[in-house]
Amino acid sequence: MVYKFGNNTADGSKELTQLLGGKGANLAEMAQLGLPVPPGFTITTDTCKQYLKSRSMPPNLKEQVQDALHTLQKQTSAELGNPDTPLLVSVRSGAPASMPGMMDTVLNLGLNAQTVQGLARQTQNRRFAYDSWRRFIQMFANIVLELSHGDFEDILEDLKKQEDIRTDSELGADALERLVQQYRQHLDRAKVAVPDDPHEQLWQTIAAVFQSWENERARTYRRLHNIPDDWGTAVTVQAMVFGNLGDDCATGVAFTRDPATGENRLYGEYLVNAQGEDVVAGIRTPHPLTENARAELGADEPAMETLMPETFAELARVRGILEKHYRDMQDIEFTVQNGVLYMLQTRAGKRSVNAATRIACEMVAEGLVSTAEALMRVEPESLRQILHPTLADDADSPELGRGLPASPGAASGVAVFSASAAEKYADEDDVILCRNETSPEDIQGMYVARGILTTRGGMTSHAAVVARGMGRPCVVGAGSLVIDEVSERLVAYEGTPREVVVTQGQRITIDGGGGRIFSGAAKMVEPSLDANFESLMTWADEHRRLGIRVNADTPEDCRTAIRFGAEGIGLCRTEHMFFHPSRMLAMREMIVAATSEGRRAALAKLQPVQRGDFAEIFRIMDGRPVTIRLLDPPLHEFLPRSDEEQLQLAESLGISAERLRERLRRLTEVNPMLGHRGCRLAMTYPEIYEMQLRAIFEAAREVRGGGVEVAPEIMVPLVSFAGELRRVREMVEAVAREVAPDVRYLVGTMIELPRAALRAGELARLGDFFSFGTNDLTQTALGLSRDDAGAFLPGYETAGVIERDPFTTLDSVGVGELVRLGVERGRAANPDLKIGICGEHGGDPASIEFFAGLGLDYVSCSPFRLPIARLSSGRASVIN
Amino acid sequence: MVYKFGNNTADGSKELTQLLGGKGANLAEMAQLGLPVPPGFTITTDTCKQYLKSRSMPPNLKEQVQDALHTLQKQTSAELGNPDTPLLVSVRSGAPASMPGMMDTVLNLGLNAQTVQGLARQTQNRRFAYDSWRRFIQMFANIVLELSHGDFEDILEDLKKQEDIRTDSELGADALERLVQQYRQHLDRAKVAVPDDPHEQLWQTIAAVFQSWENERARTYRRLHNIPDDWGTAVTVQAMVFGNLGDDCATGVAFTRDPATGENRLYGEYLVNAQGEDVVAGIRTPHPLTENARAELGADEPAMETLMPETFAELARVRGILEKHYRDMQDIEFTVQNGVLYMLQTRAGKRSVNAATRIACEMVAEGLVSTAEALMRVEPESLRQILHPTLADDADSPELGRGLPASPGAASGVAVFSASAAEKYADEDDVILCRNETSPEDIQGMYVARGILTTRGGMTSHAAVVARGMGRPCVVGAGSLVIDEVSERLVAYEGTPREVVVTQGQRITIDGGGGRIFSGAAKMVEPSLDANFESLMTWADEHRRLGIRVNADTPEDCRTAIRFGAEGIGLCRTEHMFFHPSRMLAMREMIVAATSEGRRAALAKLQPVQRGDFAEIFRIMDGRPVTIRLLDPPLHEFLPRSDEEQLQLAESLGISAERLRERLRRLTEVNPMLGHRGCRLAMTYPEIYEMQLRAIFEAAREVRGGGVEVAPEIMVPLVSFAGELRRVREMVEAVAREVAPDVRYLVGTMIELPRAALRAGELARLGDFFSFGTNDLTQTALGLSRDDAGAFLPGYETAGVIERDPFTTLDSVGVGELVRLGVERGRAANPDLKIGICGEHGGDPASIEFFAGLGLDYVSCSPFRLPIARLSSGRASVIN
Repeated sequence: MVYKFGNNTADGSKELTQLLGGKGANLAEMAQLGLPVPPGFTITTDTCKQYLKSRSMPPNLKEQVQDALHTLQKQTSAELGNPDTPLLVSVRSGAPASMPGMMDTVLNLGLNAQTVQGLARQTQNRRFAYDSWRRFIQMFANIVLELSHGDFEDILEDLKKQEDIRTDSELGADALERLVQQYRQHLDRAKVAVPDDPHEQLWQTIAAVFQSWENERARTYRRLHNIPDDWGTAVTVQAMVFGNLGDDCATGVAFTRDPATGENRLYGEYLVNAQGEDVVAGIRTPHPLTENARAELGADEPAMETLMPETFAELARVRGILEKHYRDMQDIEFTVQNGVLYMLQTRAGKRSVNAATRIACEMVAEGLVSTAEALMRVEPESLRQILHPTLADDADSPELGRGLPASPGAASGVAVFSASAAEKYADEDDVILCRNETSPEDIQGMYVARGILTTRGGMTSHAAVVARGMGRPCVVGAGSLVIDEVSERLVAYEGTPREVVVTQGQRITIDGGGGRIFSGAAKMVEPSLDANFESLMTWADEHRRLGIRVNADTPEDCRTAIRFGAEGIGLCRTEHMFFHPSRMLAMREMIVAATSEGRRAALAKLQPVQRGDFAEIFRIMDGRPVTIRLLDPPLHEFLPRSDEEQLQLAESLGISAERLRERLRRLTEVNPMLGHRGCRLAMTYPEIYEMQLRAIFEAAREVRGGGVEVAPEIMVPLVSFAGELRRVREMVEAVAREVAPDVRYLVGTMIELPRAALRAGELARLGDFFSFGTNDLTQTALGLSRDDAGAFLPGYETAGVIERDPFTTLDSVGVGELVRLGVERGRAANPDLKIGICGEHGGDPASIEFFAGLGLDYVSCSPFRLPIARLSSGRASVIN
Repeated sequence: MVYKFGNNTADGSKELTQLLGGKGANLAEMAQLGLPVPPGFTITTDTCKQYLKSRSMPPNLKEQVQDALHTLQKQTSAELGNPDTPLLVSVRSGAPASMPGMMDTVLNLGLNAQTVQGLARQTQNRRFAYDSWRRFIQMFANIVLELSHGDFEDILEDLKKQEDIRTDSELGADALERLVQQYRQHLDRAKVAVPDDPHEQLWQTIAAVFQSWENERARTYRRLHNIPDDWGTAVTVQAMVFGNLGDDCATGVAFTRDPATGENRLYGEYLVNAQGEDVVAGIRTPHPLTENARAELGADEPAMETLMPETFAELARVRGILEKHYRDMQDIEFTVQNGVLYMLQTRAGKRSVNAATRIACEMVAEGLVSTAEALMRVEPESLRQILHPTLADDADSPELGRGLPASPGAASGVAVFSASAAEKYADEDDVILCRNETSPEDIQGMYVARGILTTRGGMTSHAAVVARGMGRPCVVGAGSLVIDEVSERLVAYEGTPREVVVTQGQRITIDGGGGRIFSGAAKMVEPSLDANFESLMTWADEHRRLGIRVNADTPEDCRTAIRFGAEGIGLCRTEHMFFHPSRMLAMREMIVAATSEGRRAALAKLQPVQRGDFAEIFRIMDGRPVTIRLLDPPLHEFLPRSDEEQLQLAESLGISAERLRERLRRLTEVNPMLGHRGCRLAMTYPEIYEMQLRAIFEAAREVRGGGVEVAPEIMVPLVSFAGELRRVREMVEAVAREVAPDVRYLVGTMIELPRAALRAGELARLGDFFSFGTNDLTQTALGLSRDDAGAFLPGYETAGVIERDPFTTLDSVGVGELVRLGVERGRAANPDLKIGICGEHGGDPASIEFFAGLGLDYVSCSPFRLPIARLSSGRASVIN
């Protein structure tokens, strides 16, 4: 339960992070490295878990702590509670994952009316001793006794007024002694007390730090950062060192490389004669460590390099040892007491994405890390920031308001306030679709828009989900804006000097990565992908075993995809090809046709369009596999809504508006997600797939005739029964034989329904490949409509019922088991089966790791997520 | 590939039905029993399957047939094709399951220009010989050469005109010889021929019979009767015997007991000097076998008993042997040739449900069968016919039209043409809801109606499915009726002497078991469940291991359920309690309330109502377990639709109609099935379940105070995550502790989502019981909305993609695997877990057999299916 460290030795090491927390494990590691670490000991996270479960200290803990304390006292030649040689300790929390400031710390523990005298004698600094005591009382009262911090600050302020002084440091020793008296009176009034016995102080503090694992802000932080609730925190008890004993003392923080740019130089700040909390509290302004940095900042105060050259040299030596040992950029805390450097913490440093790629690449060049390790140094999700056009640093358009950054990238366009307006304007200009919230009937408008803005809804709202799927920049929940959809205007109240009105057709800019909205066309920069980025991608490709494909429906998508390294198309959604207003009419004619002849007439209009699209995509993809999903129209997304649209359609069909409405009413489904879609439509109306197959194979023949290789992979959506796949396969074979007998192709099936996953063996004998549609598989396995889940799913995350949104990261133990069963059964029945995944999870790092573990052949994701998928796949190979 | 039979011995037996078909296996069995069977041989179903797969006769078949033919020739002292001693054979199909008339038969095979002379000499009957020949040519041409039967009939008719005679039997030998010539000319014109060589005749006929397995009517029959397409048919080749050689010859069919009443007496018909096909064709009227039957019918022609006393005695002896041997009522075919009885077929006889129960009971009394065997003699589904009120035999109300019998039982009431009218009239009178088709918004009207009639839709339409679930008689797809929902009238065109108009408020009767509609209140009879039925139920209860519970929401349902033997309630759907118009308003107030206070106000109105309902149900169920499912409102079923309803609700809520519509719009879901329902609603608005729990436990306390035992089992709907069940369990425990600490109760969960089945281990540790909701589990596992599947699912059955409607019989290999996994994992984690099933499949015999195999504790079904479930469960125990 207790691990000691100090004097160049330690019971623990950095391998024990889960048990000792990050802080405790790295203190042990540094001690073992021979670095100057004040001695101490760490109580394990397991002990914390036991405590939280039973609400009492485990038996034997007291003995083990006493033993460790005994060692500590010998090492420091001091004793807890001894007025002559008082030992002071800090008691700090430390979880396995970094949770900065979320849990509690008590410093200067060991002081009471007797030991404060000893401290004053030892340091020959009575003011320092009383200041340390009052700080201890304040922290103990706040953390252990749960009194308000503010009350103590009020007492301090009152005293300063009485003394007629302005800063804490002007308070003398006597004043501080009086302050301690006043603090103790405040405690009496609250009917609580700080124990005099330092052992009792220690014991109560340990319990309070355990307890702090469950405070509200720690819970919230864990939820936001996906840290499991059952990890618990370790507690580190360490001998105090003081940076505030005089001018040969200091405290500071540093990064072993520049966290903003990644440059290979020590980077940090320090304060002379100060305690760590002074840096954090921002009471005094810290100074740079190096002369270079000082010069860059144009600061006057001397750098540590100049002021404390020997200690600085020691710090530089420590930096070298740490980087060589950890093989990563470190974020360190140190204290200098009377000219001697003490290391208080080291951990991997947070860094910008550009710094991360630069550091990873330079460390490879320096021989510090392998390319495999380099991959582990860059968080895949962070690449998001550098792949889209972003707002220029010097963009100075007036800000209209803020919302949630739902889908990254910046976009400018004219504001429109309805899906139909978006469709109307989209051919002439870029548009930003502005809605209070979106629904499935807006989907065509969203598709043609450059960006989407809503005033309501959260990160899992319809707008957010669809925009991410389509790769459109999106800001949601911009509550300070008011959109009046009837009068077609947007009014910004806050974040602007005065009320600003934007009417339809006026230009605005949204920043989907930062959640901001601007009036006018703000200045943007195209992403610049540097050599470091390219190196990283190359290494990821060298390591990864998963293939990377793209979900792409348009030539533009395909070009982006090739630039970002796609090896093929994993999902070409043929229905998206019809979102363009000019094609929508024929699509609608097809859907509402009451007869086979009516459908054929509409299909005859669509076929040349599809053939042209496929031919262009085949040419761009230049021999790479192109997986084409046959039509899977969620009917309700295609039906005409407005009177105008209905009138136009009725006219085009040559029927009365009345007849049309009757027909639309019949097509309306109670649960369209589970309705007459996917291959079910083809079972009823085979002519639809026949048209598409003809378009595909005619395009293939044409392109191949032009000397370009083609590799179509025909994918059947929404299969639940073997008979469905068998029938469509026969259709494919018949058309291929007739139209393009020389074109080689594959036929496969989506696995997107639980039954399909369970019956994978049967399906694998009928198909050449599987592609898991994890979006629909999640919807059906969880019985959860993505369009409707916004009403309750966010609450599930808050309440801890789910750890992550299952539409973002695959629910590995539920939906994931269906994927696993599907893979096992499919491969067992057909060892040559190619298996991929084309849901949105194909671009999510955690999900990719899961898929890699299952031995899938490829993942497919939206174009802008390709680098993330490549890096994630490379990392997955390194981990497994 | 070939099994011989004859001369009191046989290669096969009735155990080989799968291989030899029913006919072949039972001929072999009868031969072994020493009964008079003309010798022959049977080619196996496996051979048929090989033939159909490769489209060619398997190697070695010819040798084996030659060998069997050789034996047959020795046994009959005749030879195929020998003009002196010609052997004539019949070639008949025979599948493992009875498919009467669906496949093909050729008689008199072996005749040609030479052998017909021999036959004439042998029988000393030239007319008979030529008649046999022309019949053979006609059958061979039709079945093997695929010529139209009608053409030959035309030639025959022409000849009769030329000869100026009226009946076939008046045609003399010469005329028949000319007829054969004309038949052969007709064949020449069609460029086909009947081979002269009898071996070639045989060979071609065997192939044609194999082929007939795949003809259209056989496919259709198999689909309707759930016979697998891959079974194949056997072919039996048998020496011909003739019932048409003179007055000491006859042919007949008989049942060993009366198939209508079950009375223990020989029952059948015969024709003197006739062939079997004469009976079937209905050309001559057959006569009764016994004098008793003759007297009952008042017929003049003598019974066989009188006319052929010796042969009749032989038949009676055979009947005794067959019943004793088969221990079941038999349906037999026989021929008498020159006074000698020959058995041509025996099989289990079809019988009415009343006959089935009587025969089963009497055979137990006679010591012929055990009670376990008796259960296997009655088809559970057939009980449907005797459980509901039915139309009286002497009902003489005028028929308005016919439709599909979608849900059994007869019901009378005033016709209403909208759900709101149904609700309006239901308090005063019984109503029949008449719609062109129904949708979820009609559900309240369907609930309050006594019966439902639609003019469109099939057996899986919304109306049919919901009516069966609610136990309401229902006729769907009555296409000859026209309902004008606007002018509120129904017009009947066909099935009536003239156009009849029914306006709102006029009384009609529907017969949901027969699919008929009558004007006025037709005379009905209540089901009379006789002593045989009760004995059968008792035996079923003795054998079954599955418990039987009921899905019941009302006191009336509960009383019916107890009468039909329910051991408890497996599903009480609390939302159904609110379908009554008087309660609907408060329910709607609750749903659309925007605030917690608004919901609490509405809930306060609902609570006393629920408490009263629960108390009454507890009293009726008298200590039996009562499983109460907490609210699972499919919101869209409860929202007000009409302007009137909306206005009323807005007024009651004190908000504007505008506000209400905005609120309704927000509550509208894209996929309500996968939306904010079940326990998800309780996670967002815990006060709803709190109200219900309070009502349950207050009712329990009250009833228990009155001395009646209560056993509530609280069931949580739509759980997918453990956290949901944990939270609701905590709510239950808190309310129970506070309100009724002495009441013992269980808390369990529905398993109705694939994830819940997969995560059953985790859920089982949090619950006392599981109840599989196989309706929703089917919808989610198959991604199939029951409300919308009507557009394509019937086509799936026709096309053979599915064998049975998965909402009727559990999809055992798909959904069934989820149930199996759920049971295994649940039991492994919690050995005390009680497991039941409460979907509609709980009343389906095939599904019950599956559930029994999994070792479930109980099934729960609608009240009128309880006897079916009891019998099915008893049978399942006997089978397993």
